[in-house]
Amino acid sequence: MEKIGIIGVGATKFGELWKHGLRDLLAESQLKAIEDAGISERQIDMIFTGNMCSSDFSGQSHLGSMAAEILNVNVPSIKVEAACASGSVALRQGLQAIKSGEADIVLVNGVEKMTDVQTRQATTGLMGAGDEEWEGFNGLTFCGLYAMIARAYMHKYKLTREQLAMVSVKNHKHATLNPIAHFHNEITVDQVLNSSIIADPLTLLDCSPITDGGASLILAKEEIAKKFESPIWALGSGQANDTLSLHARKSLTEIPATTHAAQRALMQAKIGIDKIDVTEVHDCFSIAEVMAIEDLGLVPRGDAGKIMEEGLTYFDGKIPVNSCGGLKACGHPIGATGIKQVWEIVKQLRGEAGKRQIHNANIGLTHNVGGTGSTVVVNVFGRERG
Amino acid sequence: MEKIGIIGVGATKFGELWKHGLRDLLAESQLKAIEDAGISERQIDMIFTGNMCSSDFSGQSHLGSMAAEILNVNVPSIKVEAACASGSVALRQGLQAIKSGEADIVLVNGVEKMTDVQTRQATTGLMGAGDEEWEGFNGLTFCGLYAMIARAYMHKYKLTREQLAMVSVKNHKHATLNPIAHFHNEITVDQVLNSSIIADPLTLLDCSPITDGGASLILAKEEIAKKFESPIWALGSGQANDTLSLHARKSLTEIPATTHAAQRALMQAKIGIDKIDVTEVHDCFSIAEVMAIEDLGLVPRGDAGKIMEEGLTYFDGKIPVNSCGGLKACGHPIGATGIKQVWEIVKQLRGEAGKRQIHNANIGLTHNVGGTGSTVVVNVFGRERG
Repeated sequence: MEKIGIIGVGATKFGELWKHGLRDLLAESQLKAIEDAGISERQIDMIFTGNMCSSDFSGQSHLGSMAAEILNVNVPSIKVEAACASGSVALRQGLQAIKSGEADIVLVNGVEKMTDVQTRQATTGLMGAGDEEWEGFNGLTFCGLYAMIARAYMHKYKLTREQLAMVSVKNHKHATLNPIAHFHNEITVDQVLNSSIIADPLTLLDCSPITDGGASLILAKEEIAKKFESPIWALGSGQANDTLSLHARKSLTEIPATTHAAQRALMQAKIGIDKIDVTEVHDCFSIAEVMAIEDLGLVPRGDAGKIMEEGLTYFDGKIPVNSCGGLKACGHPIGATGIKQVWEIVKQLRGEAGKRQIHNANIGLTHNVGGTGSTVVVNVFGRERG
Repeated sequence: MEKIGIIGVGATKFGELWKHGLRDLLAESQLKAIEDAGISERQIDMIFTGNMCSSDFSGQSHLGSMAAEILNVNVPSIKVEAACASGSVALRQGLQAIKSGEADIVLVNGVEKMTDVQTRQATTGLMGAGDEEWEGFNGLTFCGLYAMIARAYMHKYKLTREQLAMVSVKNHKHATLNPIAHFHNEITVDQVLNSSIIADPLTLLDCSPITDGGASLILAKEEIAKKFESPIWALGSGQANDTLSLHARKSLTEIPATTHAAQRALMQAKIGIDKIDVTEVHDCFSIAEVMAIEDLGLVPRGDAGKIMEEGLTYFDGKIPVNSCGGLKACGHPIGATGIKQVWEIVKQLRGEAGKRQIHNANIGLTHNVGGTGSTVVVNVFGRERG
């Protein structure tokens, strides 16, 4: 099958960007990706923008039109949404557009402006990723859902509170090495344990923050991409889903959609999970990273706590996870997250990751979750076309 | 090029459906389309759902997951949005998925639950289709934007207030012949002129209503579709865009994106606009239908008023437009509208349109607008594969 290459990436600084509106974030990341690729905006055939909450948080829908307007191009341009996996489904639509023969070069964006609303509104808006009728309406928050998952997992697999905290400690350490990250401060296990309780057992430092940010990619079909210097190749992509509501699942301690999506992506890439050198997973809460590395098959079921203690998931460890700082410390601007994960994989595979560079990074994987595992996208990328 | 066929359609009743929530609407239209096609939900490879405001109006995002959950299928399923053109861009993604080779059969939905919120919230939410920073923030409503367009057009082309009212009169007449329509009452020119002023010169009866509804289609690749009884073929599809804000346009009295999208769709279909037997246009306001038939090239520029007076756009006239009742009288559940337009074309081309059946309907066209013409999608369908 014909391969598709990533020929340019761009991202804004992630953080509380009071001076930047939604349009500014989208413009900056788009233009950075175009500049990185060294193409003209006139070469772009189609645009896909992943975003979840712009209608709620900025009163602005119709981001497809905005994305095209910014570049002054008249090409098909739409917004796609799958809650926190919005960025990744935008990427998948970009890949599909090229496979369909309707586009040679596609711009894919993810963006979210979150800090213009009060926390209560942000929390309510984000709960739209779950099941409003069964969960949100009855008072559940997203933190509450993941707290129940955490409690069940800790009970079943004897994960200690300290082991769980180590996810955030590691991700904050990584973020200090990533210039675009929301947070640049290291934290300790004690700090995680002693920060405010958000939804027991999760504390403030177990939770990803409310962040503004945008990220963009330029995709090109094989014939075009191979003319560029060090394109990164999309080797496989899988999407799977599950019930919107948590109570309808058979188990609280695993997310089957992760396993299904990973199987589909790895099968398409024709490789095993053991061939992955660098992984970005969806750590919206610390417990989510614990489950992700097990559901992906990176570590045996129930071993994640021990792996954290051994430090194997640091960027210089045997199984590097979230070298950018993850959602926890790089920040989680919802629509941008899936694209920022790919941005990090591209940086690592190009050897441009600076102080957090992973040695011999040839194949990377991204894992992006919508809701509590209702939509999961897994993508695999490589330096070689495969 | 390989053609794609529509093998099933379904739609809910349109109206103020107090007893039906978002999930009910989505479930009903999906199941009706599946039943109409006579397939099993297990045969569906991918799902695309067009929706604009579920996050704002129902606190529920992540409709892709909901659509798949309803059918208990584990396939890629996402929401797409382009304001009031959301349904049509969902259709375009469905076509693209089949062209890419990644899907053989695709379910495409459009849905909107609008009547659970107060009018003020609905109006504000809908304004997200325009430019929030330049228009909405400064107090403009969508009715206000189209009122300025109407004023400019009436001035330039000497369109009378009575001629403008005839659009609504005709569409209400059509709706009385359509069982699913929101309104089943005929209205007169005097009633339009004497109804409450919403944004001068537009009165209440110039404006499409706040409506609940859902519509669905089943698409199949040629090899599969031709085994079904009377599939309707997608002959061409075009999407074009323009600035989000109205003030940035060169003219208020035409929508160039309509012309561009139509050119793209007709070129793909290899036919001229004179070959179209039945047309559904985006009459969110009466003036929008006036401009649409000119921008599409169905009538000469500036002639629309005269054409209305002559009654040529009635379903039994020479240029039948909006035989379903249009957005004005069939109703305008935002995300559903683009799919409902195709539902009507399929009904007409199959000869199943009952009392509103257009004689010898072989080729149909849909025209769906996002914002004030910031995104326009035009699709062409035929009884023959072309």
